[in-house]
Amino acid sequence: MSTIHEIIYQMGRQAREAAYRLAQLTGGEKDVILRAMAVAIRQHAPRILAANAVDLAAGKEKGLSSAMLDRLMLDEKRIETMAAGIDQVATLPDPVGEIMAAWERPNGIRISQTRVPIGTIGIIYESRPNVTADAAVLCFKTGNATILRGGSEAIHSNVAIAAALAAAGAPTHAIQLIPFTDRESVAVLAGMNKWLDLIIPRGGKGLIETVVSLARMPVIKHYDGICHLFADKEADLEMAVALTVNSKTHKPGVCNALEILLVHREIATDFLPPVAAALREKHVEIRGCEKVLEILPDATVATAEDWDTEFLELIIAVRIVDSLEEAVAHINEHGSHHTDVIVTRNEATAERFLREVDSACVFHNLSTRFADGGEFGFGAEIGISTDKLHARGPMGLRELTSYQYRVRGNGQVKR
Amino acid sequence: MSTIHEIIYQMGRQAREAAYRLAQLTGGEKDVILRAMAVAIRQHAPRILAANAVDLAAGKEKGLSSAMLDRLMLDEKRIETMAAGIDQVATLPDPVGEIMAAWERPNGIRISQTRVPIGTIGIIYESRPNVTADAAVLCFKTGNATILRGGSEAIHSNVAIAAALAAAGAPTHAIQLIPFTDRESVAVLAGMNKWLDLIIPRGGKGLIETVVSLARMPVIKHYDGICHLFADKEADLEMAVALTVNSKTHKPGVCNALEILLVHREIATDFLPPVAAALREKHVEIRGCEKVLEILPDATVATAEDWDTEFLELIIAVRIVDSLEEAVAHINEHGSHHTDVIVTRNEATAERFLREVDSACVFHNLSTRFADGGEFGFGAEIGISTDKLHARGPMGLRELTSYQYRVRGNGQVKR
Repeated sequence: MSTIHEIIYQMGRQAREAAYRLAQLTGGEKDVILRAMAVAIRQHAPRILAANAVDLAAGKEKGLSSAMLDRLMLDEKRIETMAAGIDQVATLPDPVGEIMAAWERPNGIRISQTRVPIGTIGIIYESRPNVTADAAVLCFKTGNATILRGGSEAIHSNVAIAAALAAAGAPTHAIQLIPFTDRESVAVLAGMNKWLDLIIPRGGKGLIETVVSLARMPVIKHYDGICHLFADKEADLEMAVALTVNSKTHKPGVCNALEILLVHREIATDFLPPVAAALREKHVEIRGCEKVLEILPDATVATAEDWDTEFLELIIAVRIVDSLEEAVAHINEHGSHHTDVIVTRNEATAERFLREVDSACVFHNLSTRFADGGEFGFGAEIGISTDKLHARGPMGLRELTSYQYRVRGNGQVKR
Repeated sequence: MSTIHEIIYQMGRQAREAAYRLAQLTGGEKDVILRAMAVAIRQHAPRILAANAVDLAAGKEKGLSSAMLDRLMLDEKRIETMAAGIDQVATLPDPVGEIMAAWERPNGIRISQTRVPIGTIGIIYESRPNVTADAAVLCFKTGNATILRGGSEAIHSNVAIAAALAAAGAPTHAIQLIPFTDRESVAVLAGMNKWLDLIIPRGGKGLIETVVSLARMPVIKHYDGICHLFADKEADLEMAVALTVNSKTHKPGVCNALEILLVHREIATDFLPPVAAALREKHVEIRGCEKVLEILPDATVATAEDWDTEFLELIIAVRIVDSLEEAVAHINEHGSHHTDVIVTRNEATAERFLREVDSACVFHNLSTRFADGGEFGFGAEIGISTDKLHARGPMGLRELTSYQYRVRGNGQVKR
């Protein structure tokens, strides 16, 4: 047994103990501590910024890209956003203790299904130091103990943020940060199923796949979003243009951005020129299937790979399909089951699309960008799950809880 | 790539296609097919019994224990129970399509969280051939495609049962049985995360641990039940005796049987002699802590291991505790988070126990034997989950579903 192993297991045992104490806090008690965490983040800002400067200097030394350095960078404004986010979580209702269902059986036993915290949650993430606060705070709000394992690039910033949170009066070990950033620490954490009830990896596909292959406890994955928009033959063409442009260009680097546009052949001649013009005005590169190229000769030829790609930049792949069935089959085969949209004036067609597309979010006449916990009214979001078990789509506070059956009898025995 | 690998992956692709068709069936359509499955089981009874005779002969040859042979054995009565079980599932309401929540946002988008099937489910099980029908039918009712992988002892029976089910008009490949019973087939199935959304292992701890360590998709585990009953200082002693005896002896070989009795020291002298007498009348061996032995000198000394053991036979370990806190701490540390009971007349004490014990089922004044989907009124049960994610405690039809967000807009774009 290595030292890393011993230290992380010790953190696991401590997290379990903390979880039992956390589960007994009232919503009011947790909110007082959350507000104190926001205050502590603001008060510790100079220390957090100093630590972040160390990470940034090391990152430049290592030659991180400017996009990476930007993800890593904290300033007064980002720290205030972090603190304000914590204050906002404190205003949300506490899901713990909620009675999900209650009923009485003919023999008089009274059953209630009551929301309880999950217990202990491991968060494995990469370069963004704000995840330290965001994830820990959402887990705390829902009465879970957290073990955080951030990336090496942000280690000094993460330590400073975790120290600020810990100074705010939460039960000891409610929020713990692993001081190691090597791969072994991920492996140890993922194998520790006695002490950890759930792992949430937040980061790239490589990180998620590593965690999935190692984990002996449940994992909730936030994989990629290969999102589609299908412009049906009965689409309002102006709306279809507006939704395509908004879905693709509003924030191209996120998982709910549009990647693939499917167009019903009956409207292709009328729809493709205006949508292409609007996309090009926003500097979007268009890659089309052969039939698209007949209408848009300037477009690039889409490769087979493009249909399975999350571009995350100003590129869109466009395909003409013969029918709703073909659109649905394409999405179910090539998509990532994240968010897919139909634009149509025909309600029956829309309902068929919503029912047949096997994705977390299926939209009618709406931008893909609304696939978001905030837009759904959840108040806070830990991510968008591409899993089907436990939590699917935008994950709010409820998705960070489990339940237990509390049953009251008066001496009933089984005959 | 081995042949086994190719065949199982092919079954996976077929299951996914079947799942899309299954998801579109109405509850009524599924129930018609379910009733046809019950008819087919009855009609195929001679073939199923002949196949079972082959398995039984091989089992005797191999020297299986009489308990194992009994689990394997089918007769007219057991086949009728299987068929009647299918008819009963046909009478249950279909959870698919249920609107779990629906709301409108200030910008006019209308969100509904709608129950949908999970998709494709792998069931890995051991010697009981009735699992072939039970599991496949519950998955079918909830619109999921199933891939079954049973144990070698029951392979002929399983093939005959699966053939009967397949003859009843379900979409092709809705229910598939893997024709291999070696370990490689488990490994292939557990690694096939593109085609399988969930694995449920049903069997002993060894099987479950193998699946957990290999699986790249979610697993719902039905681990052991180390169930406790705590007789509080304010317990009704007669009720505590009755509940202890019923919980321990009604069916000692199942996961919701009582294994550990905790007794508050203030009632130990009054409670232990009568409960010991009643247990011994049912031939239960009592293993006690040192303090118990002072009151029950005839009891065996409990070993440290006993507190962490699911006996599944007529043995009970008994410990005297000083307080509710000590009882709760013992249960949370040594239990399996399955089902735990407090017997007390004090409502406040009971509520504390229910809140602080971290188990799927927490009972007040009730036999552990009520931890059961049937007793909860679920109509059908696939098992009792000891996991905290997705499904905890008795799993009925709803726990075999996922959900999707169906969102209707009228052209909203994100600003």
